[in-house]
Amino acid sequence: MNSLIIDRIIKNALDEDISWGDVTTETLIDASFESELSMVLKEEGVVAGLSVAERAFRMIEPDLIWTPLVKDGKYLQKGTQLVRLSGKAQNLLIAERVALNFLQRLSGIATLTYEFVKEARKTSSTVRILDTRKTTPGLRYLEKYAVRMGGGYNHRYNLSDAVLVKDNHLAILKKEGKTIRDAIVTLKNNIPHTVKIEIEVDTIDQLEEVLKEGVDTLLLDNMSCDDLKQAVQIVNNRAKTEASGNVSLKTVAEIASTGVDYISAGALTHSAPSLDISLDY
Amino acid sequence: MNSLIIDRIIKNALDEDISWGDVTTETLIDASFESELSMVLKEEGVVAGLSVAERAFRMIEPDLIWTPLVKDGKYLQKGTQLVRLSGKAQNLLIAERVALNFLQRLSGIATLTYEFVKEARKTSSTVRILDTRKTTPGLRYLEKYAVRMGGGYNHRYNLSDAVLVKDNHLAILKKEGKTIRDAIVTLKNNIPHTVKIEIEVDTIDQLEEVLKEGVDTLLLDNMSCDDLKQAVQIVNNRAKTEASGNVSLKTVAEIASTGVDYISAGALTHSAPSLDISLDY
Amino acid sequence: MNSLIIDRIIKNALDEDISWGDVTTETLIDASFESELSMVLKEEGVVAGLSVAERAFRMIEPDLIWTPLVKDGKYLQKGTQLVRLSGKAQNLLIAERVALNFLQRLSGIATLTYEFVKEARKTSSTVRILDTRKTTPGLRYLEKYAVRMGGGYNHRYNLSDAVLVKDNHLAILKKEGKTIRDAIVTLKNNIPHTVKIEIEVDTIDQLEEVLKEGVDTLLLDNMSCDDLKQAVQIVNNRAKTEASGNVSLKTVAEIASTGVDYISAGALTHSAPSLDISLDY
Amino acid sequence: MNSLIIDRIIKNALDEDISWGDVTTETLIDASFESELSMVLKEEGVVAGLSVAERAFRMIEPDLIWTPLVKDGKYLQKGTQLVRLSGKAQNLLIAERVALNFLQRLSGIATLTYEFVKEARKTSSTVRILDTRKTTPGLRYLEKYAVRMGGGYNHRYNLSDAVLVKDNHLAILKKEGKTIRDAIVTLKNNIPHTVKIEIEVDTIDQLEEVLKEGVDTLLLDNMSCDDLKQAVQIVNNRAKTEASGNVSLKTVAEIASTGVDYISAGALTHSAPSLDISLDY
Amino acid sequence: MNSLIIDRIIKNALDEDISWGDVTTETLIDASFESELSMVLKEEGVVAGLSVAERAFRMIEPDLIWTPLVKDGKYLQKGTQLVRLSGKAQNLLIAERVALNFLQRLSGIATLTYEFVKEARKTSSTVRILDTRKTTPGLRYLEKYAVRMGGGYNHRYNLSDAVLVKDNHLAILKKEGKTIRDAIVTLKNNIPHTVKIEIEVDTIDQLEEVLKEGVDTLLLDNMSCDDLKQAVQIVNNRAKTEASGNVSLKTVAEIASTGVDYISAGALTHSAPSLDISLDY
Amino acid sequence: MNSLIIDRIIKNALDEDISWGDVTTETLIDASFESELSMVLKEEGVVAGLSVAERAFRMIEPDLIWTPLVKDGKYLQKGTQLVRLSGKAQNLLIAERVALNFLQRLSGIATLTYEFVKEARKTSSTVRILDTRKTTPGLRYLEKYAVRMGGGYNHRYNLSDAVLVKDNHLAILKKEGKTIRDAIVTLKNNIPHTVKIEIEVDTIDQLEEVLKEGVDTLLLDNMSCDDLKQAVQIVNNRAKTEASGNVSLKTVAEIASTGVDYISAGALTHSAPSLDISLDY
Repeated sequence: MNSLIIDRIIKNALDEDISWGDVTTETLIDASFESELSMVLKEEGVVAGLSVAERAFRMIEPDLIWTPLVKDGKYLQKGTQLVRLSGKAQNLLIAERVALNFLQRLSGIATLTYEFVKEARKTSSTVRILDTRKTTPGLRYLEKYAVRMGGGYNHRYNLSDAVLVKDNHLAILKKEGKTIRDAIVTLKNNIPHTVKIEIEVDTIDQLEEVLKEGVDTLLLDNMSCDDLKQAVQIVNNRAKTEASGNVSLKTVAEIASTGVDYISAGALTHSAPSLDISLDY
Repeated sequence: MNSLIIDRIIKNALDEDISWGDVTTETLIDASFESELSMVLKEEGVVAGLSVAERAFRMIEPDLIWTPLVKDGKYLQKGTQLVRLSGKAQNLLIAERVALNFLQRLSGIATLTYEFVKEARKTSSTVRILDTRKTTPGLRYLEKYAVRMGGGYNHRYNLSDAVLVKDNHLAILKKEGKTIRDAIVTLKNNIPHTVKIEIEVDTIDQLEEVLKEGVDTLLLDNMSCDDLKQAVQIVNNRAKTEASGNVSLKTVAEIASTGVDYISAGALTHSAPSLDISLDY
Repeated sequence: MNSLIIDRIIKNALDEDISWGDVTTETLIDASFESELSMVLKEEGVVAGLSVAERAFRMIEPDLIWTPLVKDGKYLQKGTQLVRLSGKAQNLLIAERVALNFLQRLSGIATLTYEFVKEARKTSSTVRILDTRKTTPGLRYLEKYAVRMGGGYNHRYNLSDAVLVKDNHLAILKKEGKTIRDAIVTLKNNIPHTVKIEIEVDTIDQLEEVLKEGVDTLLLDNMSCDDLKQAVQIVNNRAKTEASGNVSLKTVAEIASTGVDYISAGALTHSAPSLDISLDY
Repeated sequence: MNSLIIDRIIKNALDEDISWGDVTTETLIDASFESELSMVLKEEGVVAGLSVAERAFRMIEPDLIWTPLVKDGKYLQKGTQLVRLSGKAQNLLIAERVALNFLQRLSGIATLTYEFVKEARKTSSTVRILDTRKTTPGLRYLEKYAVRMGGGYNHRYNLSDAVLVKDNHLAILKKEGKTIRDAIVTLKNNIPHTVKIEIEVDTIDQLEEVLKEGVDTLLLDNMSCDDLKQAVQIVNNRAKTEASGNVSLKTVAEIASTGVDYISAGALTHSAPSLDISLDY
Repeated sequence: MNSLIIDRIIKNALDEDISWGDVTTETLIDASFESELSMVLKEEGVVAGLSVAERAFRMIEPDLIWTPLVKDGKYLQKGTQLVRLSGKAQNLLIAERVALNFLQRLSGIATLTYEFVKEARKTSSTVRILDTRKTTPGLRYLEKYAVRMGGGYNHRYNLSDAVLVKDNHLAILKKEGKTIRDAIVTLKNNIPHTVKIEIEVDTIDQLEEVLKEGVDTLLLDNMSCDDLKQAVQIVNNRAKTEASGNVSLKTVAEIASTGVDYISAGALTHSAPSLDISLDY
Repeated sequence: MNSLIIDRIIKNALDEDISWGDVTTETLIDASFESELSMVLKEEGVVAGLSVAERAFRMIEPDLIWTPLVKDGKYLQKGTQLVRLSGKAQNLLIAERVALNFLQRLSGIATLTYEFVKEARKTSSTVRILDTRKTTPGLRYLEKYAVRMGGGYNHRYNLSDAVLVKDNHLAILKKEGKTIRDAIVTLKNNIPHTVKIEIEVDTIDQLEEVLKEGVDTLLLDNMSCDDLKQAVQIVNNRAKTEASGNVSLKTVAEIASTGVDYISAGALTHSAPSLDISLDY
């Protein structure tokens, strides 16, 4: 991960939690006292973000000794010791919460992604589980990393790097008297040659119009699994297919069985519960 | 809410999502075309953060017309229309995702808090449900607001504004040859008179030592409900009591029945799923 | 253009030029005195960045009246009046240089791009003239806009939004014992499905290996026009082709005649002379 | 150069180019692989900004080994090796473009300045070639350094550090019913004693009025060489003289021959083409 | 002290003083010349902020050798050598003024606080001398530290961390038809349990109403010493008492003799003269 | 004053005081309740910074109505009403302290400057009272403004805009084997023609050496009044003269009587007590 980016995020979080100091620790703990602590996984799951936690500690404790015992991206059992760390006790206590807040959230996302992938593998060996732009404001860079650590793939990063024409765009274009095909032509005439085009299609009968003009990917939104199957057959590899909408751990295997190339799920980032990790003295 | 604070958070989120522009919308949608949209609740829950969503839209669309139909903090039914908004279609589409990301997350927290409070009220008419410092890095100000909108109360904001002596502090103090009472005396001699003192107590037999010295609040961490009850009796209003650890929707009513003053739950902020809200054209 | 982005760039430039005030203007010019000025083109060319100039003036003079007489992207004759502007004389004088510095540089880029496109059109009606990442540090967003105003197209924005495997990558991969095909497979297995792949090819005999694996675009770097022609024939629409290296106003027409899809030229942004524009009282 | 200032500029440029990472290099190049590269001059000229390039690399590759073989400010032949650098290949490739963008632009400015100075020396052994405020927004600190490296001198840094009364000021003062002499008196009564005064004079007959009141420097703008000669004689060392307007490589020697003390040229910074430098593996 | 906080303050101050460099030192002093200097106290007093001065130097001179001979918080005689420091002469000269500006101001505050405490101790062995929010904008963190170094205590840090109901609040509440008791009830029902409540009381007859409802501290503002004595008796330890208003070195001993717990004085931070410290070569 | 600069300073101060909100005011005061308040001078003096106070209020209360009754720079009697302001009571109470902190400090500086000038005028009708770089870190721009409002003049703004060769520079140059005259020659050959040169002279016998080479100003540091008189005679208008060191309200008239052009006093900014101003409901 790029340290220029994550240091800014971590600094922001430390400022938020420390403001004008830690009144408890600074008053009670001798500034020169050193401690060794360890991070332990309190429930099974995939850990992600160890280097973020490390940098959070190091920003407060420059003399940190950090000995990771596992790597990001592994599914680990409850009780696994993740890291041993030592340094000035005062500084470790001050940075602890922020470091854990990052690590627990990212590990929660990695773990949920892992579970989605595991479900999807039951019916498809190739489908990709994708994240969305429904990430936590300010943490997108980290959360997209966590999705990859859980075995998922990233969708476009944001509004700048890929075209995704959604239902709201199409509704407005219609009001302006323009068709999907007009839209695709306009895009091809204007966007950089390095940018791909994906178009949302909500019903089977819209498919041919889009395919005729040629796009990279079709977003099949909120379709039934029957419709998805039919869409995949009609598309017949003329474009990639992405299913979205109502994707949950319960539905993902069936959706995967329809043959779509990608399944995107906002839940990976907007509804992943934290993974429980503790810092033990 | 303070606009100086939230504008900085929103700007950060918009930068993250827009980077060098919205290649889709800027290419396809006429810059002068105006639209009216509405936000609709797709599942029941407590909405929180409407003014954050409004400011996100307004930062991209200065001529936004924003007509809220509900207020933060109300429990609302699925299908409720929350806001009507109009302005330049291009700008509304660009800001949409960021606005919704804030609103859905904050409403998710408010809704989960509401459910915790409802459970706790079954056995206690006075107990407060509290948040913790286990908030999303960068969003603490907003998430603590959401907890209040759900009927919860805020614990200390961060390390600066209240003393909370935890097990790790006590373990280190012990190593340095100091007792809890030493710690309390040191605190009272040094911290501002405006700062309260809360001490973690993990077993019943530690109670009297702390109470003798006098503190504002006792954090009863990971105690069984039986122990909590006993602790409440021993404390006998000589300090406030806060229960923490293993607090879930399933356990909160029983914990509340023990007579503790406060129950704090990290889950309110670290594991609340998003509330589903859509922007319809 | 996105105001969040350009305001940050403008503010930075104003800070740089104003520091602790304009000792001349603030001492001499009455704060309430109002003036009307006009911007005039001193040599023929394509103007780009009028809205950037406007925002620079407005940041210092909130009551600015700004009446543009032309639009960005037009080729205009020497002596053309571009804008009439009025407001407090003091503020207009303070902001003048920064506003012009932006407008002259961006117009210089638009004008040079226009000339490249005009040359290329002599031999090809479809070839795109592209910019590169050789932009002025801090001004990429604006300079890429200026290229479009001159009739050019943007290449990828930066390192994040498209894959471009260059000779240095290939040299290192070779050292690690990996082939181009290994690289393409690795990329396809890891990057988001929204990201396109372009590979640099320096000699004709590398073409087939890359084409076999399938990529979106071939960067034909520093090839002779004969080689470019041959490459275009071999590729035969199996990928897009981009010529780069030694592209100048003198060579661009011949390069365009080879049939490549795109021609990229760093000179558009790194060596465009300013277009002369004055603010007359 | 001051690292507080340049690090901010470099960081901004790296953010612009890296955003959320280098999708090519991070995917393909092993994070631990080390490389040695060298920077080579592809055309003759004066190099400026080696330490800026170094800091750009170091910000991404903290373990950079940087062995400069030349110094800023030297006129060097095509093919000269400038620096040998080694470190993690991944990091060097990520930082390469930004480092080169700085170095090529600054070297372009230094080289053009060198050429102006060389021309001017043909007719004057003492005249100073000066830059202006027509610098690239955001890069003034660096570009003024580059001018010095090319043998030029800096004019005032910005609006804060010296008085320069220009034609637009004088036109407005006239409207307010004030003379040049009023202006000079007002300035002397108000500005810090550490600040010098320079006044623009466009015709010979304005000279005496200004000289009578006493100023530090006269800006002789857009005068013919005959007028410049005459002005220098009239001034007769009662003030310093600066020629500006229509200064180019073709005209600078003749202007220098008029005996003015300084010649300022916006072209040094606003129209210097990049100097070609490559990073070879 | 927390380095994240103070580095931001120091950087800001260095930027303000250095802008685009030190034209004197960079021109005259050889960049490699090393010097040793020492800081000497030119008048007696309490030194505070040595680590701030150190960090200011180090930000400009990373190779600084800093040998402190005293510690913050000690009352020292005129002529005491405080620190020996060595490094590149150029860098030490550039940072000198900013480092001293911090150290002299903070030491001035510590010294004035020391004198207030000494006066107060003449009549009370327990009263705390407190600072206020009347600190220098931007320097609160540092100034509150300096107060502690002088033997004083901090009041609340800012508006966020403690309730202080002042006369203006009460006047407005009255206009809205609310009593002090209404206010206290509202506060207790809404604020975090970690936040203390202090209420301003201007006359003896307001005391009982406030005491009945129960608050942590009473702010006895601008009362005569007779009234203060009477108030202390009436309160009788039912709350802490703080005297404010007209607190000076002349009055503080008499105020302390009234038996109040705390005396707050804005003068500690808003009117402390600098302590004279020099950097000798 | 330049709003870009002061808004950044004010925002910083508001953040410092408000952090996550005003727990008192937001809890107690109805958000829609409006109030009118007035600012009143509690002791006689010169007011400076009204527009800073206004902008501080307006940043929190955009609908502020601000009716100034006096202007910056006037010496006013105790009890003078300065401003009437109205708006939402909640917002006015939140911004009050920060607005007053600025206004009281700046008015304190203006008042002390006024007194220095008044003293100096007793013996000299022309001498200028100057500030120094001994300003409060972060507030230089504002404090230098306050000095002007008190009738003083500004010295150089910072290290960038004028040369001031001090004793420490000279000591180091000596070690390097260089004379004052070497230094002056080096300066003249390198610094911009817009920058003035001032040299510190500590003894009468150093004068001629400096005068021979020609500089703009002599800094006569810590000389007795007899020496100052003698120095003024020797200099005989060949340069401007500035006295510094031991300048106080008691000594300034005698120093002024020596005939020096300028007297600089750090005390103006580093030791000015606040001027008492209150906000009355």
